[in-house]
Order: sequence, then C-alpha cells, then structure tokens
Amino acid sequence: MIIIGEKINGSVPAVAAAIREKDANYIHDLAIMQSAGRADYIDVCSAVMDDDVAVLHWLIDRVQEVSESKISIDSPDVHSIERAMKFCNKPGLINSVSMEGDKIDTIFPVIADTEWQVIALLCDDRKIPDSVDERMEIFERIMEKAKEYRIAPSRIHIDPMVFSLGTKPDAFTNFAAVTRSIKEKCPDVHVTSGLSNISYGLPSRKTINQSFLVLAIAAGMDSAIIDPTNDMLGAIYSARALLEIDEYCIEYLAAYGENLFGVKKKS
Amino acid sequence: MIIIGEKINGSVPAVAAAIREKDANYIHDLAIMQSAGRADYIDVCSAVMDDDVAVLHWLIDRVQEVSESKISIDSPDVHSIERAMKFCNKPGLINSVSMEGDKIDTIFPVIADTEWQVIALLCDDRKIPDSVDERMEIFERIMEKAKEYRIAPSRIHIDPMVFSLGTKPDAFTNFAAVTRSIKEKCPDVHVTSGLSNISYGLPSRKTINQSFLVLAIAAGMDSAIIDPTNDMLGAIYSARALLEIDEYCIEYLAAYGENLFGVKKKS
Repeated sequence: MIIIGEKINGSVPAVAAAIREKDANYIHDLAIMQSAGRADYIDVCSAVMDDDVAVLHWLIDRVQEVSESKISIDSPDVHSIERAMKFCNKPGLINSVSMEGDKIDTIFPVIADTEWQVIALLCDDRKIPDSVDERMEIFERIMEKAKEYRIAPSRIHIDPMVFSLGTKPDAFTNFAAVTRSIKEKCPDVHVTSGLSNISYGLPSRKTINQSFLVLAIAAGMDSAIIDPTNDMLGAIYSARALLEIDEYCIEYLAAYGENLFGVKKKS
Repeated sequence: MIIIGEKINGSVPAVAAAIREKDANYIHDLAIMQSAGRADYIDVCSAVMDDDVAVLHWLIDRVQEVSESKISIDSPDVHSIERAMKFCNKPGLINSVSMEGDKIDTIFPVIADTEWQVIALLCDDRKIPDSVDERMEIFERIMEKAKEYRIAPSRIHIDPMVFSLGTKPDAFTNFAAVTRSIKEKCPDVHVTSGLSNISYGLPSRKTINQSFLVLAIAAGMDSAIIDPTNDMLGAIYSARALLEIDEYCIEYLAAYGENLFGVKKKS
C-alpha cells in the first residue's frame, strides 16, 4: 500500500497559520508524525494563489529537514508544480494532472525520463464524469498520453474521484467498478483516492472513511491520500491481512508492534 | 442487517459471576444496552454443564423483564435448547444446530410449523471443513433437511464458521466465497457469523473484527453475532451505506442521531 500523507495542506486553518507565521516546528511535527505513520509520500499544498511556488519551496525544505519520505507536490496549477520539482532532493509525486487543459502535456514531458510518479484524476474539461464508462474513456486517453511520453504504468496513480455518499448512493460502488476495471486492464497502474470527499456533509466522517478504505482495498485500490494515523492505518493493515495480501498478518503484527494502530502500548 | 447480541455469555467471567450470584441488575443492564444497540435477538448462553436449562430459564426471564428483543437460545446441547424454548414469550432463535449428531433431527421437527429461526453451522461429525466445496456440500445437506421439515430458507441463518486469520491466511476469503455461493444459490437464506474467532490470537482484535464485518457485508452476510456497540455498529451502518444497501444514508443518519456510533453527542 502506497500511503500519501495529506496533513500539510494550506487549506487547513492551522496549517495556513503556520505558513503565514513561518512556524517551522509545526510543519516539522506534521512531517515527523506522517513519516512515523509510514507515509511513502508527504503531500505539501500551499493553497495560496499568489505565492504558490515560494510557499511550496518553504514547505518542501521544512519536510526534507526532518523526514526521509518523498514529497508529493500538490497544486491546482501544474506550472507551480513544475517549478517546485527542483526543490525536492529526490524524485517524488505530482499531485495532480488530469485531461483538463494542458496539464498532462505540461507535466508528462517533464517527468518522461525520470523516476517521478504522478496522480492522474479521471476528469477533463467538461466535468467529473458520472458513469463508469465515461471514466474509463478518460482513463484510456490518459494511458495513451502516458505511452506517448514513455511514462511506465507503474509510475501512474489513477484517482477515479469520489462524490459524497450523501448525494450519490453509488459513489462507492461506481468507484469500485472503475477500480476493478483499471486493475483488470492495467495491473501495474496504481489506483489511489483522496477519499475524504466520500463522507462530505455526513456525520462521523471517520466511520465512513475507514469502511471506504477497507472496501476500496478489496476492489484493488493500492494507494491512498490519507491522514496516516491510528484508525486509517488499522483499516489498511487489517483489510490487507483479511484479503490475503498480508499473509499470516506479518505486516499487521509489525505495524501493531510499532504502535501504528490500536490502543497505544507503553514502551 | 439482523443483529444478535452476544454479551450474555456465561463463559465471560463477569457474566458467570452474575449467574452465580443471581445478580439480576447485571443481566438487565446487558440486555438494555444491547436492545439500545438495535439487537434483534439477545443471545443467552449459560456455559454451565449441570444446570443448563435452569440457568437459561433464569437468564431468559431476566432479559424479557427489560427488553423487547427476541431471545437467541445458545447451548452446545440441543436438548437444553429444546427445553428452554418454552420460557420465551415469543418465537426466537436457536443457536445452533449443525450436521453433527442428531442436532438437526432434534430441532427441525420442533420448529417446523413455528416462526422460530435457527442458526446452522457448516460442520458435521467429522470436523469443520477447510475447503469451500466441503462447506457447500454440508450446506446442501442442511437445506435438504430444511426442506424435509418445512423450514423456510428465510428462517435459516447459515454460519460458515471462521478460523483465525493468524493461522489460516484464507480464513476470510474462504468465508466470503462460501457466503457468495450461498447467497447465489439461496438468496433468502441468511448468512451469519460469530465472527470474533477471525482475530483469535492476534492483537487489537477489534480492528480486525470491524474490517471483517465490512468485507463480510460486501460478500453478502446479512446477520451477525456481535457486541452491538459503537465501533461494530459504525462498521455495519457505514458499510451498508457504501454498498447501496442503505441508499442516501437514511439508516446511517438515523443511527448516528440515536448515538449508536461515532462520538457521543450530548442530549
């Protein structure tokens, strides 16, 4: 399971304050906590319009001071992402491209002969599509572009995008159908999800997010953009053990031993 | 989802003490708590060898004093169950029969023309079978007996029985395959599970039990023998919403409103 830690996001008020006040300790703590939670990538998102690249630079430096996790550069502006790539001390993750505008034609040539990975959303200029077929059609177009620019499928994380379950009853079942279809066609492509939208507008969001993770892993999702702490990690490790991905619970037992989920043990 | 509350079990030391000391309040509290958790049935298990029927009688009376939930009579001895049926003020659940010995031939005729329901375990005199095929073969034999004694499929809860994930990596996937196969052949038959065995010998059992519930519901399980409190109910309600069984989260929202899961709200 590839874990992308979502905590350093300027749209969260406390993170926005830390960015404004250049509070390095606050960012350090978030980075250390997510690395401890086995985040493969730590996402940095400035959520500011003017100073995007400068803020991304500051955030990336702070994360790299304290963490060995790779960086996931997160911005709606792919040109900001492209400029921020050089601040990373090792290849990371682009979050994200889609078939919208020139996003893919900007990013894919830049990462063509590198080890950078990329999240590609299943949407285009028109909208976020509703049906499985429309999403798969966008998937096919993304994979054609990947072939054109020599991006190996194993470097691509497809995010099928989820709607809220409160407004669309098939929000998960649709996601699961797209996930299964992608994994059938291209087993090497990763399927990921910035999954918290599934519970948008509903109470006890964590309850839904946790069950979403378990069911999505069963459908083939092998990457996730999450807060890598107790309950989410418990859902991931237990689902993988139950589904025979983690035979004899070896990873489950190791993660429990490291206090990654469950009731905290004294050391 | 049919919920069978498992808390009143004489093999739990505190319950054994309450039975010994005739502590009616303790049993009342367990019954009230499980009814509040929407238990359709409250399981009563004496776990004593000598006085089984008398203890079942005392437990059934105590539960019926405070709860409208139906009774699930739980004993390894079907003759005790048969004798305890008359203490119930409405038809309940037999927990359990199997193809072992004369269990089915004792119980099925007694419940033939009643509204009693019955849990049937997929095991026989030989053993708890390992393979999906062997379990399905026992299922077929149980359904033949049901037909013979005119027990409608909708009154039968099949428990495929789970091994511990710590010793059998396919403990869940095997359970899920049997569940899917039963639901395909006989959609009216309920599939249930006394699921806690899945996490036997592993740490943070609740983490595994919760994810098991979510994945088992996806496979078609529609009945469960559980502690109907916070985390288990959260897993059930969220899974059903995600899987389109509970469209527009109507049951999820109602259950949350009644404080059945999530962070408790002040009234």
